[in-house]
Amino acid sequence: MSQPSSLAQNFRAIDVIRKKRDGAELTRQEIEALVSAYTRGNIPDYQVSAWLMAVVLKGMTRPETAALTDAMLRSGEVLDLSSLPAKKVDKHSTGGVGDKTSLVLAPLAAAAGVAVPMISGRGLGHTGGTLDKLEAIPGFNVNLSVSEFQRVLETCGCAMIGQTAEIAPADRKLYALRDVTGTVESPYLICASIMSKKLAEGIDALVLDVKTGSGAFMKSEKDAAFLAELMVETGERMGKQVVALITDMDQPLGNMIGNALEVVEVIEVLHGNGPEDLRELCLNLAGWMLHLGGASKTVAEGKQISAQLISSGKALERFRQMVELQGGDPGAIDNPHKLPKARHAMTVSIEESGYIASMQCEQIGTACVILGGGRERKEDSVDPSVGIVLHKKVDDRVAAGEPLATIHYNDEARAARAQQLLLQSCEIAEKPNLHKRPLIHRVIGN
Amino acid sequence: MSQPSSLAQNFRAIDVIRKKRDGAELTRQEIEALVSAYTRGNIPDYQVSAWLMAVVLKGMTRPETAALTDAMLRSGEVLDLSSLPAKKVDKHSTGGVGDKTSLVLAPLAAAAGVAVPMISGRGLGHTGGTLDKLEAIPGFNVNLSVSEFQRVLETCGCAMIGQTAEIAPADRKLYALRDVTGTVESPYLICASIMSKKLAEGIDALVLDVKTGSGAFMKSEKDAAFLAELMVETGERMGKQVVALITDMDQPLGNMIGNALEVVEVIEVLHGNGPEDLRELCLNLAGWMLHLGGASKTVAEGKQISAQLISSGKALERFRQMVELQGGDPGAIDNPHKLPKARHAMTVSIEESGYIASMQCEQIGTACVILGGGRERKEDSVDPSVGIVLHKKVDDRVAAGEPLATIHYNDEARAARAQQLLLQSCEIAEKPNLHKRPLIHRVIGN
Repeated sequence: MSQPSSLAQNFRAIDVIRKKRDGAELTRQEIEALVSAYTRGNIPDYQVSAWLMAVVLKGMTRPETAALTDAMLRSGEVLDLSSLPAKKVDKHSTGGVGDKTSLVLAPLAAAAGVAVPMISGRGLGHTGGTLDKLEAIPGFNVNLSVSEFQRVLETCGCAMIGQTAEIAPADRKLYALRDVTGTVESPYLICASIMSKKLAEGIDALVLDVKTGSGAFMKSEKDAAFLAELMVETGERMGKQVVALITDMDQPLGNMIGNALEVVEVIEVLHGNGPEDLRELCLNLAGWMLHLGGASKTVAEGKQISAQLISSGKALERFRQMVELQGGDPGAIDNPHKLPKARHAMTVSIEESGYIASMQCEQIGTACVILGGGRERKEDSVDPSVGIVLHKKVDDRVAAGEPLATIHYNDEARAARAQQLLLQSCEIAEKPNLHKRPLIHRVIGN
Repeated sequence: MSQPSSLAQNFRAIDVIRKKRDGAELTRQEIEALVSAYTRGNIPDYQVSAWLMAVVLKGMTRPETAALTDAMLRSGEVLDLSSLPAKKVDKHSTGGVGDKTSLVLAPLAAAAGVAVPMISGRGLGHTGGTLDKLEAIPGFNVNLSVSEFQRVLETCGCAMIGQTAEIAPADRKLYALRDVTGTVESPYLICASIMSKKLAEGIDALVLDVKTGSGAFMKSEKDAAFLAELMVETGERMGKQVVALITDMDQPLGNMIGNALEVVEVIEVLHGNGPEDLRELCLNLAGWMLHLGGASKTVAEGKQISAQLISSGKALERFRQMVELQGGDPGAIDNPHKLPKARHAMTVSIEESGYIASMQCEQIGTACVILGGGRERKEDSVDPSVGIVLHKKVDDRVAAGEPLATIHYNDEARAARAQQLLLQSCEIAEKPNLHKRPLIHRVIGN
């Protein structure tokens, strides 16, 4: 940790709190002093939580947001991946239901020659988490040390782990405080939290998948676009190439929700199969990763190359290699029946004929949490085997009695509650929607 | 402490924080549960400070403010003065420079048959505090137990002490937290803090002196009136008679500033002398106290009775009696030369001729603090002997070289700084003000 500057020595937290409360712009030095003092335990939680609430209600300017991101980033280690000749590109999603693109994208981009050092999170609330999905693969270890992480990355071009103690400790401390003080919901704080962790990975470029719709944290496209612009600008201010795709989360992505089931669907996509929406989103995100990573001249070319790497089996092979390097059973990739399986399955049938007008996506995510596939509290453990397979999606024509979904469960009572939520989540209309929601709403940046 | 209700048991601080953050109105039960849990140490400071910042920035409705006041009031003991047949009336000032009315009013109203159970505070920042002034009287004890307090009150009709541990402990805890988290400046929180303590005195009625101007916490009349209305309505919702006078604090009240000096001026007023503004404000506030206390049919009659009680020496005699009962030296009341005196005095002379257009009143208060007469931090001690005697006030015609003030000091360097501030504080104009500020701006309530 560097010595505090004379400015930091004169720093009083109360002045920074008051200044933000009164809507003034904080200086880079003030933000740096606050974050650094808090990380070192020199400012009490009660001052920082008052400041966080002032930020939630008064907002931050772009320079303040960049300064906060930078201060959080520099609170810990920044990975030095300069020994790797390839460009380092990561992808981050703001979270959704059935969003398993990371597991497809990391090996896919790696197969194209882009290095993907991916540090991910766990599921919380109605959304799933990449780490939980990876851990559905028997033996897969997401807790690598930084040097093991680098070794896997050097060997197969991608590696996927959880946050380490060294990366952005300020974020860990701030996030824990935000979680219990009603100060999570601020685009500025969300931006700084995401970007500080991602930029600590030592990447050159970042593709952001900002979800919008009933299953996203940002329900409205306006809020999603605001956060996306904030993250793109913050990344650019810090000298990184950043692009954000606003993508649809008004219904689950793909058909499978639940950790092991999602790995099954990832393998399907890497085999060139899988549901159209998931495949399409993966190709688009991969197209951007390849383009920013210098593996294609254009995004369109990046998509083409990605499609070829799937057809040729090279992306799947890269996935298998990463799984093996991280201690996972590659046999489970070859034969997905080896993945954890729930003991029971039940079919949920559609009650009336018509068209599926909408799916309340957060409810579907919550149904999976109720089955045991997600966590309501950080300390909860997850059951990798349970989940939901959707047989119908929005805009599908349905007849009463047709199967809507299959619930994979280990507990009868939980299954009954999940069934109820699933049925409630679907709105059936007599006529089809006139306006279909696009999969990719817009692209921001670059 | 009563058992928590089932609602309080289900209470989660995070929900109350979020609700206030999002601008919704909290229920009485939610506020009660928050205050009670915090007072008992069942909610951490960091959650309460986030909630306080949300209150500062989102405000409170009148029912919320009353509920907060009530919860804070009931966090501790409420004095039971029902054994006293007289009506119990107190006066509270929001604080200013040279504001020594409490020392005049308590014995004055008591002499008229109104009981005055007064619990006061110390000076903080540029403002003086009643307790510091009382302690300038040799031997005066402001730390009576509740039973001693009641005995003095029964004997002479008035008693003046500091806050006890039993009165509104929630306020003490909340105030300490607000002080370090930038959440002092909220009319709702100020109202609840003042009113919870005052209503815990077991009073029937309350006269509020809400200061406005350059020496007040509420600089603008609009802010002062807002706070006054809030306190009046809150008191009325709690079944008390409350009236608020918005009074001028754009220059010091009276001519003397500093603890012992202010006692001297109090004795002058009780002798029927003293400066016109101080005397006039005391009579107006006393008029209201007598009226609300049932000692006069009207406020005007209350003023008349008060003036008579001063002329007859009965108010002074009551003051002398209270001083003696609380361990003070009554000889210092008979002979103010016995009060603490600074070792040195210097005259500050006016630099140009004209009219005093304005006095930056907070600067004058700060000059007294610099001399040692006030405290910058809670833990500082005060020097009772030092202070400032003003020879000129706003609207006075002055000639260059005339004395503006006399500084009573014990430290040369401090005196020099105080002199500079005093000179800076006065704006001299060629012509007199066309619009003179009234002493009493308005009366709110009753």
